[in-house]
Amino acid sequence: MDFKEKVAESYRQIQDQICNGLEKVDGLGKFEEEIWEREGGGGGRTRIMQGGDVIDRGGVNFSAVHGKLPDQIKNSFGVDEDEFFATGVSIVIHPINPWVPIIHMNIRYFELNEKVRWFGGGIDVTPHYVIKDDAQFFHSYLKNICDQFSPIFYNDFKSWADRYFYINHRKETRGIGGIFYDRLDPKKSGLTYDEILTFSEQVGNSFLPIYTELIKRNQDKPFTEEHKAWQTFRRGRYVEFNLVYDAGTKFGLETNGRIESILMSLPPQATWLYNFKADPGSEEEKTLDLLKQGIDWIS
Amino acid sequence: MDFKEKVAESYRQIQDQICNGLEKVDGLGKFEEEIWEREGGGGGRTRIMQGGDVIDRGGVNFSAVHGKLPDQIKNSFGVDEDEFFATGVSIVIHPINPWVPIIHMNIRYFELNEKVRWFGGGIDVTPHYVIKDDAQFFHSYLKNICDQFSPIFYNDFKSWADRYFYINHRKETRGIGGIFYDRLDPKKSGLTYDEILTFSEQVGNSFLPIYTELIKRNQDKPFTEEHKAWQTFRRGRYVEFNLVYDAGTKFGLETNGRIESILMSLPPQATWLYNFKADPGSEEEKTLDLLKQGIDWIS
Repeated sequence: MDFKEKVAESYRQIQDQICNGLEKVDGLGKFEEEIWEREGGGGGRTRIMQGGDVIDRGGVNFSAVHGKLPDQIKNSFGVDEDEFFATGVSIVIHPINPWVPIIHMNIRYFELNEKVRWFGGGIDVTPHYVIKDDAQFFHSYLKNICDQFSPIFYNDFKSWADRYFYINHRKETRGIGGIFYDRLDPKKSGLTYDEILTFSEQVGNSFLPIYTELIKRNQDKPFTEEHKAWQTFRRGRYVEFNLVYDAGTKFGLETNGRIESILMSLPPQATWLYNFKADPGSEEEKTLDLLKQGIDWIS
Repeated sequence: MDFKEKVAESYRQIQDQICNGLEKVDGLGKFEEEIWEREGGGGGRTRIMQGGDVIDRGGVNFSAVHGKLPDQIKNSFGVDEDEFFATGVSIVIHPINPWVPIIHMNIRYFELNEKVRWFGGGIDVTPHYVIKDDAQFFHSYLKNICDQFSPIFYNDFKSWADRYFYINHRKETRGIGGIFYDRLDPKKSGLTYDEILTFSEQVGNSFLPIYTELIKRNQDKPFTEEHKAWQTFRRGRYVEFNLVYDAGTKFGLETNGRIESILMSLPPQATWLYNFKADPGSEEEKTLDLLKQGIDWIS
């Protein structure tokens, strides 16, 4: 089994574990699977849960695709090879209870040849209402993982997430960030490819304990119609980010990816309010005030 | 008064007439106005109606802005001047009754210097349910206007709308199209600038009689929860088009336009359903089958 097959196999297992774990946590919802093949090479397993007890809609996707790289992208890499391989796990969960945050996780590996190959990924949390203790828990968890691999990973990847998960036209972060990294290879990281794979796996494996804890802390909190209205409003921002900025979504839309898998990140409902202003001192205003880059959530 | 001031003044009046007319047709809703100024030069009048009797949310915006063109755009024009002027009226109406279509209209004028100046615009209709008689009425109305100015305008601009108002990742048109044109100047059209202005005004003035008729035909049709659910689903597609493809929206987001004016085109609510398939033979399926380019709606 060569390296790329090893990565794909590991990612496949991570998808399985996460789906099993989420079904247990939810208690009611079950994932429906759609196996798809890509014209040009490879395919994937899209798994969607709708109408669970905790999860309103969630998608946990695995794909491993290969084929000819579009010329435009090939040229930007400055290489002759145009046979690429890419595998990844991608998750977005929209919960029912507005006190439980939206969560996103992605781990991926891309290979063009022996020299041009790298890992990317990230995990970020979008609370409808920012809860500082939860943010501290989340970021501390990520820092612990990062610190096992490099003393600079957490700060680097946390800043990167602040920049990446940013709704520039709103001057608002999508949520409380997390970590984001791309094109991670031995030259950039000082790690071997096997070590970076282990890091990638640990990011993937962090998803379930992190989200389980965030659900446990918030799932039983009561909520009103007003809280639900705020949730769909915040989901509107999520739609804006994903359709306007998200690199994975854009790449998928432009390269004729499987549309229902790509857009599973969109929420079941979203609302837009013209010229919304939060009431002074409200929970909504407090959340908006925390949608900023550069916040140190840990200390 | 020079030409650009004449255009802006005419567009301002068109905004006034349309707002007055829509308030009469709606009977209940009133437009709220926000006057804004642009850092760098000019400004606009954003007018929004929410919660009317016919109109769920509608925006009728006028703007006339000027200033320094971003370098990137300047270079693409191959000119030295970088002082631009742009004015336009832009409308999107989301109705309450799913049998009444969403409508969009835009007329605009851009000027960089004596040589580089042009008109653009269009009007297109997005029915939640396509009604062929309404489509015929709408396209015939547009053809009549176009034919007064050029025998080729309607076919050209109708095809352009089919290409422009297209959700490429869905392989679906946004609706039944209409007309779309850009960079229209004497060289391209065989008309003088004054004649093109008259054409632009007639497109602008067509909005009210067209939409009034479409409302009159459909406003009293009863609808169910299922029809409303389909409406918010179709609105999700509208969101996808506007955030992923719409050139005006993109330009606005990238150039720090007034965000609430730009995104007033988004509906109050939208929904996404994973892997939706319309029931065979249903009204929904019939509509999806008609979201195609190149349909001759008139004959």
